[in-house]
Amino acid sequence: MVSDNRNAQALGRLLAPASIAIVGASDNPDKIGGRPIHYMRRHGYGGKLYPINPQRGQVQGERAWPDLEALPEAPDLAIVAVAGEQAVRAVDRCAGLGVPAAIVISAGFSETGEAGRARQDTMTARARAAGMRIVGPNSQGLANFGNGAIASFSTMFLEIEPMDGPVAVISQSGGMSAMVYGLLRQRGVGVRHVHATGNEADITVAELACAVLGDPGVRIVLLYLESLRDAGALAEAAALARARNVPLIAVKAGRSEAGARAAASHTGALASEDRTVDAFFEHHAILRARDPQELVRYAELALRGPLPRGPRMVVVSNSGASCVLAADAAAERGLQIAPLGRHTQEELGRRLPGFATTGNPVDITAALLSNNGLFGEVLPAIADDPAADMFLIDIPVAGRGYDVGRFAEDTARFAAAAGKPVAVVAWQDNVAAAFRARGVAVYGDERQAADAMAALRRLDTLLGRAPAAWKTSPAAAPAGAHAGLLSEAASLALLARHGLAVADHAVCADADAAVAAWRRIGAPVALKACSTRLPHKSEHGLVALGLDDEGALREAMARQAETLAHLGVDDAEWIVARMRRGLHELALGVRNDPVFGPVVMIGAGGRYVEALGDVALLVPPFTAEAALEALRGLRIGRLLAGVRGEPPADMAAVAEQAVRLGRYALSAAGHVASIDINPLLAGARGEGAVALDALVELSDAADAAARRAA
Amino acid sequence: MVSDNRNAQALGRLLAPASIAIVGASDNPDKIGGRPIHYMRRHGYGGKLYPINPQRGQVQGERAWPDLEALPEAPDLAIVAVAGEQAVRAVDRCAGLGVPAAIVISAGFSETGEAGRARQDTMTARARAAGMRIVGPNSQGLANFGNGAIASFSTMFLEIEPMDGPVAVISQSGGMSAMVYGLLRQRGVGVRHVHATGNEADITVAELACAVLGDPGVRIVLLYLESLRDAGALAEAAALARARNVPLIAVKAGRSEAGARAAASHTGALASEDRTVDAFFEHHAILRARDPQELVRYAELALRGPLPRGPRMVVVSNSGASCVLAADAAAERGLQIAPLGRHTQEELGRRLPGFATTGNPVDITAALLSNNGLFGEVLPAIADDPAADMFLIDIPVAGRGYDVGRFAEDTARFAAAAGKPVAVVAWQDNVAAAFRARGVAVYGDERQAADAMAALRRLDTLLGRAPAAWKTSPAAAPAGAHAGLLSEAASLALLARHGLAVADHAVCADADAAVAAWRRIGAPVALKACSTRLPHKSEHGLVALGLDDEGALREAMARQAETLAHLGVDDAEWIVARMRRGLHELALGVRNDPVFGPVVMIGAGGRYVEALGDVALLVPPFTAEAALEALRGLRIGRLLAGVRGEPPADMAAVAEQAVRLGRYALSAAGHVASIDINPLLAGARGEGAVALDALVELSDAADAAARRAA
Repeated sequence: MVSDNRNAQALGRLLAPASIAIVGASDNPDKIGGRPIHYMRRHGYGGKLYPINPQRGQVQGERAWPDLEALPEAPDLAIVAVAGEQAVRAVDRCAGLGVPAAIVISAGFSETGEAGRARQDTMTARARAAGMRIVGPNSQGLANFGNGAIASFSTMFLEIEPMDGPVAVISQSGGMSAMVYGLLRQRGVGVRHVHATGNEADITVAELACAVLGDPGVRIVLLYLESLRDAGALAEAAALARARNVPLIAVKAGRSEAGARAAASHTGALASEDRTVDAFFEHHAILRARDPQELVRYAELALRGPLPRGPRMVVVSNSGASCVLAADAAAERGLQIAPLGRHTQEELGRRLPGFATTGNPVDITAALLSNNGLFGEVLPAIADDPAADMFLIDIPVAGRGYDVGRFAEDTARFAAAAGKPVAVVAWQDNVAAAFRARGVAVYGDERQAADAMAALRRLDTLLGRAPAAWKTSPAAAPAGAHAGLLSEAASLALLARHGLAVADHAVCADADAAVAAWRRIGAPVALKACSTRLPHKSEHGLVALGLDDEGALREAMARQAETLAHLGVDDAEWIVARMRRGLHELALGVRNDPVFGPVVMIGAGGRYVEALGDVALLVPPFTAEAALEALRGLRIGRLLAGVRGEPPADMAAVAEQAVRLGRYALSAAGHVASIDINPLLAGARGEGAVALDALVELSDAADAAARRAA
Repeated sequence: MVSDNRNAQALGRLLAPASIAIVGASDNPDKIGGRPIHYMRRHGYGGKLYPINPQRGQVQGERAWPDLEALPEAPDLAIVAVAGEQAVRAVDRCAGLGVPAAIVISAGFSETGEAGRARQDTMTARARAAGMRIVGPNSQGLANFGNGAIASFSTMFLEIEPMDGPVAVISQSGGMSAMVYGLLRQRGVGVRHVHATGNEADITVAELACAVLGDPGVRIVLLYLESLRDAGALAEAAALARARNVPLIAVKAGRSEAGARAAASHTGALASEDRTVDAFFEHHAILRARDPQELVRYAELALRGPLPRGPRMVVVSNSGASCVLAADAAAERGLQIAPLGRHTQEELGRRLPGFATTGNPVDITAALLSNNGLFGEVLPAIADDPAADMFLIDIPVAGRGYDVGRFAEDTARFAAAAGKPVAVVAWQDNVAAAFRARGVAVYGDERQAADAMAALRRLDTLLGRAPAAWKTSPAAAPAGAHAGLLSEAASLALLARHGLAVADHAVCADADAAVAAWRRIGAPVALKACSTRLPHKSEHGLVALGLDDEGALREAMARQAETLAHLGVDDAEWIVARMRRGLHELALGVRNDPVFGPVVMIGAGGRYVEALGDVALLVPPFTAEAALEALRGLRIGRLLAGVRGEPPADMAAVAEQAVRLGRYALSAAGHVASIDINPLLAGARGEGAVALDALVELSDAADAAARRAA
């Protein structure tokens, strides 16, 4: 891991090796053993190249060496481009010589099935034992255009000419690394790092992300992921990126069930629930893109200017129809088309004499044809308007009579001065090229532009969030607990012990105790029979509500006892709980994700939690503010704010309960498998929120703890 | 309108005029009065051209005429390219000469404000009086590349070379007509008709859609709309398109509030609720696209092959990552990645020896590099698999070593033989071009391809729907009715009279009557005070539930009477209704849209109908099947199907109630303003669905009917 100094150094050297051996070097620049040599000669690699080829004295004009042992030094890096068992042997010999890292380009490992996986595991284990790191196997390689260390055989560097720049691309899939590189270069963006990790027997995308963040020339990091095994390294990369003010944007493919199945067969990805991936990314301020094209669209905008500091977009176009389309696109992505201030409108009125509207969108009409300076005149008048957090310049049609170069210059000059993000929409190649040549981000349609703006706005919001300042230490498992479900009573007690508000209740073994409890509570009560064997008690009629006299209470208990006997349940106890009035039934829960650890769910409660799925996920630690935002984003968010004359719900209390649950979940992740609080009854503002029912499931680790305690 | 024979002829002649006069003809081919002449000469217009220019003997080599009156005949069409009042005079003179139609290119009319609108209205009224049709004003013109009648000044025909083809593009906005034309031509698609209607003082987009559907060369019709005044003509176009098996695809911009505001300022569009537009389009099997780019993506796929007959997609790629992305994209749009049949898998196993998977997606891996015939070998083996309603060929990376021309040929041959839609994903220009050159649809990413497939799948479903066979005749307004809200009692009575199931109830003036009603009903009842002045009675505590003895009933009524007195309501009566048990509270309603007429809403009922917005819209007449589909598509659709051990709801009964309400709404559109049934209580399957509460609002037309009856 990166926190290990020796490995951090090894990873750093991987990107800037002073010497590189190529095992299986080929004189043919189109073979995988030939391409890296070809690229490094072409792109000015300044270190030492050691082609290994026992058959030849020279390879592509470089002196060749018969084997690794013949080299005058142990190289910083070995590229292994020989097949199958030969590759395993080469890695062994590298390890023996003290080579710190190897890139295994060779295929034929875990991607081919069980035998390949065994070969891969053997190879990796031996390398690890020798302290050597491995990229791959089945990797397209690493390429650093900052220093010419192109340890990659990607064809794409022949198809689209490389240019050094501020972008780092890291991908499991070689194809996707090449594609993202190509899409960026098509847009005129310079790319420094293009790395593919292949089977990830050892080094992961997240680790390389940490490594490229050590390169001060990197201003944005783009990832393509299918599996995600090391959430910790990704979190560390996110923290490094944030500290350096470098946007970290990632595709995590396999979003759907069908996609996850395909990913499992492609890279053996573990399937986390996709919403958990979203929650983890949000938590660490990693912007998620759905596909490589979206990734590149986000990157282009992030590179060309600052992030949007608010949601308000000003649209300027020479087409009224495009104004409509842009407004639709902005609304679709939650951006606002706000009216311009009076001062701005007056100023526009002066600069656009005779125009029908000076509102937002600003339709400069075909008048642009007779005054090619209109963009330059109009934009500065709006620059500081409070309605303008971002600008969209929309040019659906240009051609003869239009001075597109001037539009582009005016826009670029404005963008540089405004300190706010500017995007252009243009589908004509020559129009797009004119703007890109001047460093302005260009999109093919309004929806792509608005999507990029909204995504970066979201990133800005995530980066601006105050982090939760929690200190959690591992909590002990409940005494005597075993793996499996706790009863409702035990669940409520456990949650109460960890600071959650639960309904006033008593646990009773018999009717006399229940009557006594009702007298103490002094109000109508609910009577619930509970047994860990009946988690869904209401479906068995084991909940009686609104009991407020002794006879009714005893009668209800007798009926429930009969039902229990009928069901063969003999371990039941009863809960007598004060009836609470509340406004809304919510649900809170915890799940332990195999990759990301505990995740808190917050959503609409009641019978239909799963079927309606109106739920948000939060990765602890999180702030009450983050929980509030999640609540507001639910479909029932509007209800909670108060509709039809109802008061607003006590959302602050709900958020506080979520925070407490998150804190407990984090400290108890070792032994709690899941928690479900449903309903969490929210009262009106000031009335709080209490858990009426809860179910805690302990994991196998609780057994171990119980055994240790015994 | 088109159903008028004379006008149908006029519109037909507009697209194929035997002679064209150009008022304001210019010798300069870059002036708006010069461009049409330039284009018609260039694209071989075979009719007679009459340039009108009193200053010149010749214009662009054609004989010029001093004025309209000097012409040897009344031309079939006049293009008016002179400004302001001159344009009005030219239209007058055309009308006087019996010219059947004019295209007024000139701007300066309603788009400039009130004075311009007045000028436009005057001009149109005079033309109408003479039986002359007008396109525009402020129109970019009409262009027919089938016969060279290019009565348009669009610059785009200079930017991107025209090619005749099967597409008709009709738009209010000239810019959008040009843009759609350009996007199509960029994709290598031939375009015949490019028409812009401008201010639509007379001829609308929908009317021109009917007209181009008279051209047998047209195989697809694409519309761009902002305002929609003539729903009838659009419905007629849809019917014509359906009869001719021609897909009709339309952008209706102004989807959002911000967009609608922009559209109102651009074209003075009336704001229908956007979901109503969706419902209307669905009803008439018009495929809706969100923007011109999407429109063109749908068109390309629709032109290149048949519509998908099912939702199952087979993906074939040379990249495992693209397989994942394609599966994600398919799932995002509701398409299915189904497993291939055993026979297909065996066949693939033979053709792809040594491959790890023969599942779907089919990852042919980089093996494509050593066998460039793999696409051609693999595709036919899958052609008839039940999992294959459509094919997506995904080539994220190609270059040196790849025979892209062969891939394209193999794919084109396969597509022609398979009779199923095939789309290719490729972002490299040369790869895309190779496939397009062979008539295969190409997309830049998987999400665009899956979106197009899913959209055309939806179109196929809509076209396959059996139409509702309703016969409705106008219903009379309720006797003595007046504009405004009916009471709950009157509302329920009215709905019951028109075949809707309402809860068993009695309307009572006093306590004795209520007690008698309760005795007759013989079960617990609800008591509801109702007055048209208190539409939200439950918020005033005027609903008492579960009353089952005389004392309780009288007491409840006394309490309600007190509340009514307190509220100053003296026109109340009471409803005594049998308490019903049901599974789910739904809502049914009717709204009258200013453009589309009555629309039925069906959705989740209860207190929070508006706040939760889980509602679908249906345009009557519709079938019970369409209502069922709408129900299933609700967020509560899963609940209605039965979850957590609950039986499924009687969705058939709900659908039947919706159909009956739709029938009534259609017949009563003249006098019913709105209807709200909430809750419509749905029982378990076989138990039916009944209206528990209803509110009918009559429109001003009811007053008129009452006056006529009086």
